[in-house]
Amino acid sequence: MINKNQIDDILSSYDKSKIEITTICSHSALQIFHGARREGFKTIGICTQDRKQMYDSFPLAKPDEYLILGKFSDILEKKYQNFLIESNAIVVPHGSFVEYVGPENLEEKFLVPMFGNRKTLKWEGERKKQREWLQKAGLKLPKQYRTVNEAEGKVFVKFSGAKGGRGFFTTDSEEDLKKKLKKKISQGIISKADSLTLTIQEFIPGVRYYIHYFYSPFKNRVEILGMDKRIEPIDDSYRGLPDIPDEFLDYTVTGNQPVIVRESLLPEVLKMGTNTVKTSMDLFPPGMIGPFCLETIYHPERGFTVFEISARIVAGTNLYPEGSPYSSYIFEEPMSTGRRIAREINLGIENGKLEKVIF
Amino acid sequence: MINKNQIDDILSSYDKSKIEITTICSHSALQIFHGARREGFKTIGICTQDRKQMYDSFPLAKPDEYLILGKFSDILEKKYQNFLIESNAIVVPHGSFVEYVGPENLEEKFLVPMFGNRKTLKWEGERKKQREWLQKAGLKLPKQYRTVNEAEGKVFVKFSGAKGGRGFFTTDSEEDLKKKLKKKISQGIISKADSLTLTIQEFIPGVRYYIHYFYSPFKNRVEILGMDKRIEPIDDSYRGLPDIPDEFLDYTVTGNQPVIVRESLLPEVLKMGTNTVKTSMDLFPPGMIGPFCLETIYHPERGFTVFEISARIVAGTNLYPEGSPYSSYIFEEPMSTGRRIAREINLGIENGKLEKVIF
Amino acid sequence: MINKNQIDDILSSYDKSKIEITTICSHSALQIFHGARREGFKTIGICTQDRKQMYDSFPLAKPDEYLILGKFSDILEKKYQNFLIESNAIVVPHGSFVEYVGPENLEEKFLVPMFGNRKTLKWEGERKKQREWLQKAGLKLPKQYRTVNEAEGKVFVKFSGAKGGRGFFTTDSEEDLKKKLKKKISQGIISKADSLTLTIQEFIPGVRYYIHYFYSPFKNRVEILGMDKRIEPIDDSYRGLPDIPDEFLDYTVTGNQPVIVRESLLPEVLKMGTNTVKTSMDLFPPGMIGPFCLETIYHPERGFTVFEISARIVAGTNLYPEGSPYSSYIFEEPMSTGRRIAREINLGIENGKLEKVIF
Repeated sequence: MINKNQIDDILSSYDKSKIEITTICSHSALQIFHGARREGFKTIGICTQDRKQMYDSFPLAKPDEYLILGKFSDILEKKYQNFLIESNAIVVPHGSFVEYVGPENLEEKFLVPMFGNRKTLKWEGERKKQREWLQKAGLKLPKQYRTVNEAEGKVFVKFSGAKGGRGFFTTDSEEDLKKKLKKKISQGIISKADSLTLTIQEFIPGVRYYIHYFYSPFKNRVEILGMDKRIEPIDDSYRGLPDIPDEFLDYTVTGNQPVIVRESLLPEVLKMGTNTVKTSMDLFPPGMIGPFCLETIYHPERGFTVFEISARIVAGTNLYPEGSPYSSYIFEEPMSTGRRIAREINLGIENGKLEKVIF
Repeated sequence: MINKNQIDDILSSYDKSKIEITTICSHSALQIFHGARREGFKTIGICTQDRKQMYDSFPLAKPDEYLILGKFSDILEKKYQNFLIESNAIVVPHGSFVEYVGPENLEEKFLVPMFGNRKTLKWEGERKKQREWLQKAGLKLPKQYRTVNEAEGKVFVKFSGAKGGRGFFTTDSEEDLKKKLKKKISQGIISKADSLTLTIQEFIPGVRYYIHYFYSPFKNRVEILGMDKRIEPIDDSYRGLPDIPDEFLDYTVTGNQPVIVRESLLPEVLKMGTNTVKTSMDLFPPGMIGPFCLETIYHPERGFTVFEISARIVAGTNLYPEGSPYSSYIFEEPMSTGRRIAREINLGIENGKLEKVIF
Repeated sequence: MINKNQIDDILSSYDKSKIEITTICSHSALQIFHGARREGFKTIGICTQDRKQMYDSFPLAKPDEYLILGKFSDILEKKYQNFLIESNAIVVPHGSFVEYVGPENLEEKFLVPMFGNRKTLKWEGERKKQREWLQKAGLKLPKQYRTVNEAEGKVFVKFSGAKGGRGFFTTDSEEDLKKKLKKKISQGIISKADSLTLTIQEFIPGVRYYIHYFYSPFKNRVEILGMDKRIEPIDDSYRGLPDIPDEFLDYTVTGNQPVIVRESLLPEVLKMGTNTVKTSMDLFPPGMIGPFCLETIYHPERGFTVFEISARIVAGTNLYPEGSPYSSYIFEEPMSTGRRIAREINLGIENGKLEKVIF
């Protein structure tokens, strides 16, 4: 694994007055570039030809410069890494960045300085490690079962390999599980490899809140920057009642809508975020840095159940390029998560401790 | 009951150049403090120790000063009331304020000047009085039944005691009603006392719109400041189909999402608000003052049915610390309901008639 | 049909320094007036007496002047048309404008210059022409059937005459279709005339995204200005489970909520908009001008299906008087669709080519 010293060496060669922000043109790149621009940074978009036109159509969010690749994973090639390093570029990793480049590659082969703590990738990406992290943070997680029979009633079936909820389903018997698994593989919705990563979880009733946090080492505080609810085909499934077409039973994330939570729940929300950060400092020092998201289901009788953590910027923050109902209470200026990242980088430059938030 | 003269006497002792805004740290306090600050007021947060950290995490919305109590109802103690009065404090009451301190206590024992008309509490809090108010205002209300049999088909069962929709349910027979009631009491979801406040209402099909109004005595107008939809566990219940777990059938409010209504319905929306205010002037002069919310279900064939009024700031306004799609059409500045309250207090100070909006 | 020369003649008589913006007081008029005002235009509201009070209650969005009519279609009278023309007025047509005045009347009798291309009305209004347009643009449309039997499973039944989804329903047999049709006619929900415009469409599973575009001839670009989801009674239907009252099965649009879509879908979103505009230039030159909306259902396995186009400002844009999560990436200022229209008119005035965007 690339170690921190290697990245620090590269970062020390950077002209701190000419730092540029870069990421892959997908996921939350518009917001990241837009926020970086507002904080005074130049930006580089790692892009493919077919996507460039869309980014160009948003003049205030398009990157100042494009690095056009055949495919995103080409960014691992030495010459492209060198180009970014010579541009004094800091990568802001997002979900698609990790997905396209591969978490192992980011850990082993990608030497461009990244915002945040690279060690987080492993703790987010490996299901067991993630569970250990959240459990040690004292969060309530869904129960996990080895078989459907172990559970009472309905369970939720997930895959590590599947992206964005694709192929997930509910079931209440082993027989039905096998049938659905077979069907989804034959339809190409999940792969055989995916099916081996199967997890059987408790089905949690309640309302989903995806909570956007930001941990700032320079301000030494956890900020609640916003919330959203993800929109999946199953969220329009009632329109197909009484005989819901199978295609509605799909958990792939397609977009987001804005929500807020009862103010009396915010102390708990803040505590969950703070504990997540504190625990990460023990597990993989210096721990979680920058944006992360706890993906929760809230029920009045059960409280918050956290079914996943995204240990980087989430796409739900795209709702708030001008700030959210929560960021208004922290910042005078419109503060997106993308801008917040750039702001933290600026703080690091100003106080000469940029390496604290870069790995 | 405390009378207006008593409050006027206390208010007349206030240094009008040093008015502070105060409320209990819950419900919509962040918004209230944030809005007060923007209008130039100092703020006092009536808080418990366990909540303070959360308020501190929002630097632009935390109160300038805290009054930390063992429990919120301690605010009734003479020494704390005196502290607030000596601070020239005006209380902005919200749903949790009324709930924690108790409506009778606010009427009988709490001498700190409050924004709005204290008489409103009784007309909002007593179900019969509330119904009388809304009916006289010409609003369409859900039918009420003495028994399930009296209704045709499904009915909605509510309790006065239950907070925020907790324990509410639908039923279509007396037998089922009794069974559900018994179960909810045994689960501790409602108390026996709650069960005695049971109301059987018509089940209304349609879309819920929670409409945020503000009546300004100084501007002599009813303003539409925003709208929201409340999010309850039942709102994610379709994700549990076909056999929805019982826990989904829960009407407790957990948060809010922003909505707007067809423009062609706004004349009716405005008329409902205006009539509500006019009627209140007859029933309990000088009537409703400041923010209130009509909780409606709209159906194309039925129009708006109003199933409840909240005669003070509602938590749905927390969606709009920077203003809503409606407040933009009234104010040049970002205008939350919290700020709007502070603005009205400022108007009262400026024209020397603060007592008009305080009781 | 009125031809472009007639309108150009009238427009050439206009004092370009005193252009006023006008529309019928409904649909998105608040936003249109508010946006026009921000771009420096005076506004005229074509209104009925019963609606005036509501518009007056929004001081920053009410028109500078009212033209009060007995009924909206009176605007066709010569004297009123002359009044508008003498006021140097440009009409911004919206859905209710077209509905109240009648598309044929706008084509044959209404000589006041309108923003956009008047020829669009026919291509939007006639179902066959609309389908031709969208198909030629390469968009994926729902399949259409002559009978329910032709389809497999559930179909969606729509009417041209019905406004805003009123009377639409789903069915899975000819028998059920006939029964429902009969019932809806007897209930007065649709007319016999409506029933003759019946279309039987494929029932599409997935999530609805209503995408707000703007084509600017002066900037020569298609802008994505926002997105919404429409709220219909069926969207609260799950609250009536298990025996959903019939009244919930209603597709009339009652309001809107804000949404965003995955960033990785935006290249496709932009392409759909661009192709729609390009195709319109061939079909009815100079083609689509200004705001339009593609009404889509997205499903991970199917991509976007476009079930309708609105070739003018849609009411969902009312969510964004201060701009949307997308307009922030294009404009420094808060940019609503209403303001965007006024801005395009300003561009036309500035470069002396106003007639390019007026017909």
